[in-house]
Amino acid sequence: MKITGTFIDEISHDIPHQNWGAQEWEQDFLYMKAIGIDTVILIRSGYRRFLTYPSVYLQETFGCYNPPVDLVELFLNLADQLNMNFYFGLYDSGKYWDTGNMTHEIDVNRYVVDEVWAKYGHHKSFKGWYLSMEISRKTKGATEAFNTLGLQCKGVSGGLPTLISPWIDGKKAVMAASSNLIKSDAVSVEEHEKEWSEIFSGLKGSVDAVAFQDGHIDYHELEHFFAVNKQMADRFGLSCWTNAESFDRDMPIKFLPIKFEKLKLKLEAAAKAGYDKAITFEFSHFMSPQSSYLQAGHLFNRYQEYINTLL
Amino acid sequence: MKITGTFIDEISHDIPHQNWGAQEWEQDFLYMKAIGIDTVILIRSGYRRFLTYPSVYLQETFGCYNPPVDLVELFLNLADQLNMNFYFGLYDSGKYWDTGNMTHEIDVNRYVVDEVWAKYGHHKSFKGWYLSMEISRKTKGATEAFNTLGLQCKGVSGGLPTLISPWIDGKKAVMAASSNLIKSDAVSVEEHEKEWSEIFSGLKGSVDAVAFQDGHIDYHELEHFFAVNKQMADRFGLSCWTNAESFDRDMPIKFLPIKFEKLKLKLEAAAKAGYDKAITFEFSHFMSPQSSYLQAGHLFNRYQEYINTLL
Amino acid sequence: MKITGTFIDEISHDIPHQNWGAQEWEQDFLYMKAIGIDTVILIRSGYRRFLTYPSVYLQETFGCYNPPVDLVELFLNLADQLNMNFYFGLYDSGKYWDTGNMTHEIDVNRYVVDEVWAKYGHHKSFKGWYLSMEISRKTKGATEAFNTLGLQCKGVSGGLPTLISPWIDGKKAVMAASSNLIKSDAVSVEEHEKEWSEIFSGLKGSVDAVAFQDGHIDYHELEHFFAVNKQMADRFGLSCWTNAESFDRDMPIKFLPIKFEKLKLKLEAAAKAGYDKAITFEFSHFMSPQSSYLQAGHLFNRYQEYINTLL
Repeated sequence: MKITGTFIDEISHDIPHQNWGAQEWEQDFLYMKAIGIDTVILIRSGYRRFLTYPSVYLQETFGCYNPPVDLVELFLNLADQLNMNFYFGLYDSGKYWDTGNMTHEIDVNRYVVDEVWAKYGHHKSFKGWYLSMEISRKTKGATEAFNTLGLQCKGVSGGLPTLISPWIDGKKAVMAASSNLIKSDAVSVEEHEKEWSEIFSGLKGSVDAVAFQDGHIDYHELEHFFAVNKQMADRFGLSCWTNAESFDRDMPIKFLPIKFEKLKLKLEAAAKAGYDKAITFEFSHFMSPQSSYLQAGHLFNRYQEYINTLL
Repeated sequence: MKITGTFIDEISHDIPHQNWGAQEWEQDFLYMKAIGIDTVILIRSGYRRFLTYPSVYLQETFGCYNPPVDLVELFLNLADQLNMNFYFGLYDSGKYWDTGNMTHEIDVNRYVVDEVWAKYGHHKSFKGWYLSMEISRKTKGATEAFNTLGLQCKGVSGGLPTLISPWIDGKKAVMAASSNLIKSDAVSVEEHEKEWSEIFSGLKGSVDAVAFQDGHIDYHELEHFFAVNKQMADRFGLSCWTNAESFDRDMPIKFLPIKFEKLKLKLEAAAKAGYDKAITFEFSHFMSPQSSYLQAGHLFNRYQEYINTLL
Repeated sequence: MKITGTFIDEISHDIPHQNWGAQEWEQDFLYMKAIGIDTVILIRSGYRRFLTYPSVYLQETFGCYNPPVDLVELFLNLADQLNMNFYFGLYDSGKYWDTGNMTHEIDVNRYVVDEVWAKYGHHKSFKGWYLSMEISRKTKGATEAFNTLGLQCKGVSGGLPTLISPWIDGKKAVMAASSNLIKSDAVSVEEHEKEWSEIFSGLKGSVDAVAFQDGHIDYHELEHFFAVNKQMADRFGLSCWTNAESFDRDMPIKFLPIKFEKLKLKLEAAAKAGYDKAITFEFSHFMSPQSSYLQAGHLFNRYQEYINTLL
């Protein structure tokens, strides 16, 4: 299974910035293209006071900072030139992380969606929306948030597709800032299916594709969870993507590029389950030949050798 | 506001060493010079048993290790050649960190100051002293330590200026080895002003410049804290510098280079407050094109582009 | 004291993978050779479900994954070509770490030893075995495990030598995933001697060399611990090696290359104690010019300068 999409991790919660300029971003899109990536997904357009684009609304209303570069414009131009698809990730105010309440995210993003579509909707590469709320099974109001925002995104943009990328509440679902690598109260496959079926059943055409993050469960658990995810996606009419994490959750340094074998196991599990598409979080830090983490360039080489054997 | 000074982080508490030789250090001073840095400040001349120079006193008295290279001589020679100013950072025995008691640091450094001035005082680039005790508002005996050591430094050296670089006890003031990124009992602007005014009012001409570390408070708090710092500095006759940290305190990996936008916000806040000079902790790991952290080279480029727009 | 051996850290517990291919491994063996390394020691042949070689037994019995490359074959071929000695590290099922019980490791490795010798024993560079159980003084059943497995390794291979590399339960003996750097209940030299003498006295010719890890004690403690280690080794007829760790245990990032001065202190302490050989954990991440950690290349240069002064 080939990776054909990647998140772009600007703005980041927990991955240190590379401080790239326009030149490095252009080179990176070329590297992506070279291994068959056709879709780039902005992980979020802003996080708390930091923004990827100069949003008048967010600056005036919440005191967000005026970014030194309009990254959304930059990414859309590159995607335009290279015939790639760009998905816009919604704004994350941080309030949900602080309070567990999703209401504020919904309210704010109503304005963001309108503003962004007016500003960037003319780009031919603007091909979808990423509902960036990283939720898990226990998130209150998840279904309502997906419906409200997903339908609004589609409404303003003539029905462009929407994507979500939740996590499986597995044994590796610990906070990045925690020194622990695993937790004891991991979800079972049965609970996972029950709770996500409940969430999915409430969707009203607001979500087109779901890409569960693949890094929170153990490698031998992939097969069962992936089979269940595919069944649920089919049952509720969703496209089933995998979010193949290219960073390693098993190491004390949080986070460096993943061991190639682990990525291969995850991609093969997704292929076996009949998934529709594989995307990764994310190319530029963890798989790019120009990444500040040199292990990423070697992962790029190993991955490229691997996909050549699939031909 | 341009960065015109940098700490040199030998010996380090918590930043892994780059294992540079004389050649790399020479190159790094050239890089510093290229972006307008005129002042280098040795963060400390020794930490516990590790030393930057072969101190007979510290080796004989405390069993410190004989260093493989005399870094103080190396740095002074480079500063001599390049017409830069070198500030010598005092010795840190570690006993203050262990006991909270500053007496030992004072006693030891009385000998260090004499030894160092005798050995290196002839260098034309030896232009000041850095009182390296990293104190915060709650440090007992801070004023006395500053007075005793500051006046002694000035006494032996014909009145060379002294610098301190305390931290603001803000929400990011957590231990480097802690997995946490923030704490809940952060100081308010009012408490900060009250407590530091008390400390500064006790100084007897022993300190010339104060460079508060800028990384322990949130970005939107910079303006208020900086305004207060400048007022206090003016009131007590101190030069007001900013210590613009070029590493990122918001990430699980402690520590990698900061996102350029954050550095820009901090420098602009310092400019707005009318600060006299900006220094950084520190160039060689976090901003140098030859840093082991490749993000640093990109930060160098982004910073250079930025200062070109200031001309 | 020159480093003449290195572990190879595949499969890793806690050091992120570099994703090297055959070309990088060949280059790395050449770099090792260039600074006088004649021995490579596979740290373990597998860890839980991940393997370095396609073990039919481990895959069929425990559901281990089929590795993308046969690293054991790769390493043996390189060692053959370069006249280096290869030590094979036994399999680590992880069950000992989970349960504190060594029985499972003994049972599994009986099969592994036979399988491996049949498959790879013909290589001229296959020169020894590494009993990979990383034990400390409190490990129950350590002596029995060493005897059972050590004697079996020797039995199948015509008496090839065996190596162990335990840790000293010093103040830095904390888990890699812990945010702490030191603990308070460190072992004393006397306890260390008493407990390890007990373990060594039970060995029945099953172990030829012991290489205590040198990173868990403070630098000024090296001399005493090393003297005791050498005395014990002599008393019980073991070769006394040092495992000179080339990563830094004193920093919040776990783990990056060590400061050269620290490595030098440790090697000099081993020389002073009359140790027989120095190996390191490990060259490829922490000392190699092509390491993803660029500090490693500088450590290589500093180390090379240092050993040139020893000639």
